[in-house]
Amino acid sequence: MPEIKHECGLFGVYGCLDAPEKVYYGLYSLQHRGEESAGIASAAGSRIVSHKGMGLVSNVFKPQDLTRLRSQAAIGHVRYSTIGASEWHNAQPFVGEYSKGQVAIAHNGQLVNAKSLRMSLEKAGAVFHTQTTSDSEVILHLMAKPEYRNNLPGLLGDLKGAFSLLILTPEEMIAARDLNGFRPLCIGRLNDGYVVASESCALEQIGATYLREVSPGELIYIDKNGLRSETFAPARPSYCIFELIYFSRPDSVIFGENVHLFRKSLGEKLAEECPVEADIVISVPEGGNSAAMGYSQASGIPLERGFVRNHYVGRTFIQPGVQQRRQKAEIKLNAIAPVVAGKRVVVVDDSIVRGTTSKSRFGLLKRSGAKEIHVRISCPPHRFPCYYGIDFQIKEELIAAVRSLEEITEYLEVDSLGYLSIEGLLSCTSAPKDYCVACFAGKYPVPTEITKKAPEDSEEWEERTGEHIIVV
Amino acid sequence: MPEIKHECGLFGVYGCLDAPEKVYYGLYSLQHRGEESAGIASAAGSRIVSHKGMGLVSNVFKPQDLTRLRSQAAIGHVRYSTIGASEWHNAQPFVGEYSKGQVAIAHNGQLVNAKSLRMSLEKAGAVFHTQTTSDSEVILHLMAKPEYRNNLPGLLGDLKGAFSLLILTPEEMIAARDLNGFRPLCIGRLNDGYVVASESCALEQIGATYLREVSPGELIYIDKNGLRSETFAPARPSYCIFELIYFSRPDSVIFGENVHLFRKSLGEKLAEECPVEADIVISVPEGGNSAAMGYSQASGIPLERGFVRNHYVGRTFIQPGVQQRRQKAEIKLNAIAPVVAGKRVVVVDDSIVRGTTSKSRFGLLKRSGAKEIHVRISCPPHRFPCYYGIDFQIKEELIAAVRSLEEITEYLEVDSLGYLSIEGLLSCTSAPKDYCVACFAGKYPVPTEITKKAPEDSEEWEERTGEHIIVV
Amino acid sequence: MPEIKHECGLFGVYGCLDAPEKVYYGLYSLQHRGEESAGIASAAGSRIVSHKGMGLVSNVFKPQDLTRLRSQAAIGHVRYSTIGASEWHNAQPFVGEYSKGQVAIAHNGQLVNAKSLRMSLEKAGAVFHTQTTSDSEVILHLMAKPEYRNNLPGLLGDLKGAFSLLILTPEEMIAARDLNGFRPLCIGRLNDGYVVASESCALEQIGATYLREVSPGELIYIDKNGLRSETFAPARPSYCIFELIYFSRPDSVIFGENVHLFRKSLGEKLAEECPVEADIVISVPEGGNSAAMGYSQASGIPLERGFVRNHYVGRTFIQPGVQQRRQKAEIKLNAIAPVVAGKRVVVVDDSIVRGTTSKSRFGLLKRSGAKEIHVRISCPPHRFPCYYGIDFQIKEELIAAVRSLEEITEYLEVDSLGYLSIEGLLSCTSAPKDYCVACFAGKYPVPTEITKKAPEDSEEWEERTGEHIIVV
Amino acid sequence: MPEIKHECGLFGVYGCLDAPEKVYYGLYSLQHRGEESAGIASAAGSRIVSHKGMGLVSNVFKPQDLTRLRSQAAIGHVRYSTIGASEWHNAQPFVGEYSKGQVAIAHNGQLVNAKSLRMSLEKAGAVFHTQTTSDSEVILHLMAKPEYRNNLPGLLGDLKGAFSLLILTPEEMIAARDLNGFRPLCIGRLNDGYVVASESCALEQIGATYLREVSPGELIYIDKNGLRSETFAPARPSYCIFELIYFSRPDSVIFGENVHLFRKSLGEKLAEECPVEADIVISVPEGGNSAAMGYSQASGIPLERGFVRNHYVGRTFIQPGVQQRRQKAEIKLNAIAPVVAGKRVVVVDDSIVRGTTSKSRFGLLKRSGAKEIHVRISCPPHRFPCYYGIDFQIKEELIAAVRSLEEITEYLEVDSLGYLSIEGLLSCTSAPKDYCVACFAGKYPVPTEITKKAPEDSEEWEERTGEHIIVV
Repeated sequence: MPEIKHECGLFGVYGCLDAPEKVYYGLYSLQHRGEESAGIASAAGSRIVSHKGMGLVSNVFKPQDLTRLRSQAAIGHVRYSTIGASEWHNAQPFVGEYSKGQVAIAHNGQLVNAKSLRMSLEKAGAVFHTQTTSDSEVILHLMAKPEYRNNLPGLLGDLKGAFSLLILTPEEMIAARDLNGFRPLCIGRLNDGYVVASESCALEQIGATYLREVSPGELIYIDKNGLRSETFAPARPSYCIFELIYFSRPDSVIFGENVHLFRKSLGEKLAEECPVEADIVISVPEGGNSAAMGYSQASGIPLERGFVRNHYVGRTFIQPGVQQRRQKAEIKLNAIAPVVAGKRVVVVDDSIVRGTTSKSRFGLLKRSGAKEIHVRISCPPHRFPCYYGIDFQIKEELIAAVRSLEEITEYLEVDSLGYLSIEGLLSCTSAPKDYCVACFAGKYPVPTEITKKAPEDSEEWEERTGEHIIVV
Repeated sequence: MPEIKHECGLFGVYGCLDAPEKVYYGLYSLQHRGEESAGIASAAGSRIVSHKGMGLVSNVFKPQDLTRLRSQAAIGHVRYSTIGASEWHNAQPFVGEYSKGQVAIAHNGQLVNAKSLRMSLEKAGAVFHTQTTSDSEVILHLMAKPEYRNNLPGLLGDLKGAFSLLILTPEEMIAARDLNGFRPLCIGRLNDGYVVASESCALEQIGATYLREVSPGELIYIDKNGLRSETFAPARPSYCIFELIYFSRPDSVIFGENVHLFRKSLGEKLAEECPVEADIVISVPEGGNSAAMGYSQASGIPLERGFVRNHYVGRTFIQPGVQQRRQKAEIKLNAIAPVVAGKRVVVVDDSIVRGTTSKSRFGLLKRSGAKEIHVRISCPPHRFPCYYGIDFQIKEELIAAVRSLEEITEYLEVDSLGYLSIEGLLSCTSAPKDYCVACFAGKYPVPTEITKKAPEDSEEWEERTGEHIIVV
Repeated sequence: MPEIKHECGLFGVYGCLDAPEKVYYGLYSLQHRGEESAGIASAAGSRIVSHKGMGLVSNVFKPQDLTRLRSQAAIGHVRYSTIGASEWHNAQPFVGEYSKGQVAIAHNGQLVNAKSLRMSLEKAGAVFHTQTTSDSEVILHLMAKPEYRNNLPGLLGDLKGAFSLLILTPEEMIAARDLNGFRPLCIGRLNDGYVVASESCALEQIGATYLREVSPGELIYIDKNGLRSETFAPARPSYCIFELIYFSRPDSVIFGENVHLFRKSLGEKLAEECPVEADIVISVPEGGNSAAMGYSQASGIPLERGFVRNHYVGRTFIQPGVQQRRQKAEIKLNAIAPVVAGKRVVVVDDSIVRGTTSKSRFGLLKRSGAKEIHVRISCPPHRFPCYYGIDFQIKEELIAAVRSLEEITEYLEVDSLGYLSIEGLLSCTSAPKDYCVACFAGKYPVPTEITKKAPEDSEEWEERTGEHIIVV
Repeated sequence: MPEIKHECGLFGVYGCLDAPEKVYYGLYSLQHRGEESAGIASAAGSRIVSHKGMGLVSNVFKPQDLTRLRSQAAIGHVRYSTIGASEWHNAQPFVGEYSKGQVAIAHNGQLVNAKSLRMSLEKAGAVFHTQTTSDSEVILHLMAKPEYRNNLPGLLGDLKGAFSLLILTPEEMIAARDLNGFRPLCIGRLNDGYVVASESCALEQIGATYLREVSPGELIYIDKNGLRSETFAPARPSYCIFELIYFSRPDSVIFGENVHLFRKSLGEKLAEECPVEADIVISVPEGGNSAAMGYSQASGIPLERGFVRNHYVGRTFIQPGVQQRRQKAEIKLNAIAPVVAGKRVVVVDDSIVRGTTSKSRFGLLKRSGAKEIHVRISCPPHRFPCYYGIDFQIKEELIAAVRSLEEITEYLEVDSLGYLSIEGLLSCTSAPKDYCVACFAGKYPVPTEITKKAPEDSEEWEERTGEHIIVV
């Protein structure tokens, strides 16, 4: 399991033959956004039918499942779980029935007022099926309330936090994105139908043409009469910069940027901010590939291949035991000793979270004979939690939240360590003010219930916010 | 799949070590009440955890599942589906969360006002998770309503129809039975704890001592302080006679009667009402075994074994094709030709529903050389639907609803056919007035929404109610 | 798992449409002869294709498996394992290729010279695939030897012990039975084709007509020109009496006897040899059903139903723990207390092996209030091992081999115990001299390698053979 | 499934704790050598126990399987099937028993005289379990023959063709490699034990130290007394060049060359032999990565990232239908349009087999707006079959065997196409004469049965051998 978990990927198709099959392929190309469960809900005739399961898209669906779902409108979802909730019935799309009929809902993001919404719904008599806070179920309950039943814009305006949404009824597909636009969501065209996806790479997968992003604060209805757009709240963009740095696929266009080229420019900036004399530049694959290419080209230090990744991502199990420790770190990655032996090596990666995996990987280089190891990270240090849908490790485990740059360098046993600055990072975007960098800077664009409930804790965080951002 | 489907079996344990494991064994002995899905919900600490699945108890649960559920209080459920609803998420116990916390609910029976209850709940904003009318979910939603939240007796008093209920919260286990007492439910004691079961055979399975039935209109709370009983409505018994005739296990005591001895007495009565000269009496196993023994002893005609049943009940699949027809009928049952050849045979069975299976079985006897075949059925002809939890075939398929006794005899190609009379049937009980015989007589003890909604149809049935009941 | 394990059931079809499907149904009705693995080999075109697996027939085969095997000739097999060999690759039919092409072989019985045959084959260079002595593989290796390659009668004449065999090549199906005829094997006709089965009930299952038994010492070739018979050795019948007492299905005709009627006559004989004053006769289902009926009719004591069996034979798992002991014994069987309470009960069963299960069952009757318990067993005490294909418990575990009648009665905590005598048993057959009763009497019709190798051990057995046979 | 299939990967461990677990990790890192089945055989005490299955290593083995196999000596195998033989019982290691006891055997390569060996074995009475020619089973049968039983060197000397072998008995592990050394095999040390692997990357995976290659013609015995080496035939090296070009992992050292650096040098050579004016160099990942890096550095044209690969290799199913065609080609790979749009692009790949996949990938670039597409292949055109263990497409499907360079260029719809020359290829090795280039040049170092049996066919190939090798 990755150290940083995103919450979801969305894909919806309306008005195309074999819509569930197209959703299947769309989810397959969004698999990196959620490996834990997958689901598709389809508007087959007058009913919503669904199929969900734990695991990868290719494991969850068999041909007969898609055949059973066959229709011209369907939405799908892939997800990682948040802690303790990796159970079957939390898989999405969530399907329910209320006074207006059946509805399926799929959601990417995190509401910051989900808990109070749920409590007031329960007070009024609501019964929840999911055991932990599932934002999808909260939204569905709100949709069922008489006051919101015919006022979806009003409902969406009362939600706080991050939500990219897909809703399917027997008659229409609805897409919406919070006014901050934290999570991406885009629209494409396929023949006479429409496609909505978390990332543009999924549109290309099924041969659809990219139209545009769903705007922050926009609500889109797609039915047999076509597409109709509405603004439920004025946009106040604070796009999640981490989508560009880490989550999205290099071939996607997100927030107007191509992900690979953006990451390559981070590498160039990093070469400028954190230069070093060295013989070769290598990346930690796959995350560091684009930035390493940028670093090499900007610095003139030749690019080499220092690591090989085992592409068989099937979950290997690890049996306990001291002897297995070494394997644990290296099972996915091996160094190419003849490449790094005797060399001064710049290693570019996209993040350091807890530091343990990084330490083990750089150790591989050392054992393979690297003379010097200079680590360069293509983003600033992670020091604050995210409340908008990314599941970082808890604060105590974020190495940059509890250790200084020197301490980290020492811990990793490398010769130097450099992070990109927040300013440098934002300078690579075309609209620096439209991004959320809370996980680096500690300033949150939308206040959350959670911080309010732990004042002494947030104080501590507040203090840290004042700290100087560490750059070499 | 059987031609007559019951809806459920319930089993709950409170205050015993390894309660989920005991529920597992209890459900195993109630398996005949529902082969389609099984589930257990357990009050593990302050949370309700559950495990459910499609299939037999022995397939749904693995040892590790029970280990995960380990607690001192748990309820379980086995069920058949009603048409079109044999999906995973309809398996019980149904688990939800409302303002008072988590709750699991398991239900046997059928509410006659479920549809209108659900509609008014949805009007008020409720979101249903199950796609078809699941009475359990309706009851749970009512429990969550502010007006019922602290008034379970009032809630139960507003339900109409058949319900034997088990409710589990982290603190207590609740059992209740409708005022008509349609479905059985009994209480037993195991060490310091209590056990509630649909049938007494399940108590014996785990070594519990039978205490008594839950009374019609009774509500029982079991918690760490022991058992507390309350009457939510005055009893007006109309026990389902079909529980005794067909569903329950021969070793159970239901409505005060031992099932085997009751069925044996039906056979004795049948010998009296429908005598015939013959050489041997045989049964259609297993259903006819007890009654055949009674018929033999009352008539003096020796009991023999004319059929052998293949005990490997694993679902065999049948591939289409004319050649398979013969096998289809005989895959579970074969005749013992040397026993019946040249004999005048009385065949005792417990019911004829559509007639096709019966016809094929009697045909086996004919082909094995039986000289005469006299069919005796240990209950009256089925001519009316049940609205209290039994899923007979639809009206058009009930052979006795659409054909006369002579026509049926001719269709079955047997020498004579005799059904037990309603009076004869009731005379075998110790309290004839306390039983519902609506499926034979067409008089319904509790009016239903369903008949109201199809007046022209109910008219036809009303007319039939006037008909003379067919007895030889 | 049963206490007495048989080794196999065979079924073959030649010259019929959808032969593998017919074999599937045939095996389904022979399932009682082996629950551990099932397999079908089919002569599809010029190749032998097969499908095998662990578990029941209904679990091992899916419709597509049969479709893949589709042909007009196929053989199948069900088996129990012998100790330590319940692994996949021991499942039959065994398929191999030798100089004459591909061949599949299925076997019921046990060769007494298998070990020495295998050793001499290995000495000559043979490689065995099965890890333990699989008689099928030994026979196939012999078939491949140049000296036997064109002399199957000679090969069969050199085998010693019990073997009912089915062999399939792309051109023909071959059936053979050892000269003692230990295990049953019969031939039937279906349209223009032939069917070979371990028991006649399987012929009836697919609508085939019973022709006759394969004779001891007979070799039958079936190909497109029809059936050709040959005698490879003069018959010296010693049919396994235990096939009639215990293994075969009541509706089968085996060694010329209908199994149910034979067992009923055992009950009649038992009533004569071991009479007792009592109120009711009950059986331990299913094994004791036929004999109990005979005992009741011969003695005039009314037949009742004292036990109910749970028909859901899916393997329930039992978790360890003192508390589970009671359940362990009773999970398949429960007593009907109202039937036995206060009564003097005759309980008829077909065997007592280790005695533990029996003790627990009779204990159920005691706890249900039975006044007296008189156990009657419809065969003599088991005191010797079988070397011809039945896997009894080892000697030390056969209660009758190590305890006297009085000791067993005391151990079982019953009021009296009676076994049928060997003479009484044989008097119920139509050819008493043609049966093997070695497991009761210790006289073996064919000498075995195994006894020869443990002389001091066989001495002890010899001594026991001299003992008086215990009859009440 | 890849277009070019290798036959196997081997891994063995002797004298280490938890040997099967180490084999598991070793196989995991050799997964690229065979995705179809995996197996491990272990010398647990005096017996060989094994576990095999279809699919990836991570699917075939569960923790309990490894626990069951636990021992200090084990060998493992991964494989691709050859046509028509992808069945369970062809999975290796092959386990059998002969006069000297149990043995497991795992094999990588292909014997050219397997068919005649098998025929003579069958003539002498051998029974084969595998249906198609399994070289492992042939070798095991030879080992069982009296004349070879104590003469393994003699046996190996009589085998012709490619074989890297691992043999496990309860006492020892044996490794051997054919005198040509077609397939790689190396030895490593782990604590007091030894490890044998197809590639050095697998040694590193478990922390073992690389010692050396098993030499062509060498036979190695490893037992509790350590390692003993013997030469069974004088080495006549003809290493498979395709192992370096295509099969092996970039971090392995094979035939004395690091795979990544070798491939990078192929790219450099290719830049020299087939230069072109262009804006960027991209690779077809993963195969073309190293060569593209070499091409870029030698030519001075900047390296870019033009394709993104979907790393979720779980087998997606493709439903038939015209509409799916586009997806089929692109499901694993997508172009990064903003990178290639308007550019003159050099695309480097490691091979073109049938040409269909390549055509579709280059089409992606075209549709993404590339101005010019110049394809450079880092090996010569494939024009001849391999008889030593690589399963190319059949001759008619090898595009370079049936079309000229101009025709291929036209078919692919690209602007230019360049292959590396045979001379250029060999110049990148340190011992050009020690390699087999039969698949490019048609000259076979070891004569095969197969060509002998089809003279008119081999003639045709001979003729082609005379053709001019196509180089730009």
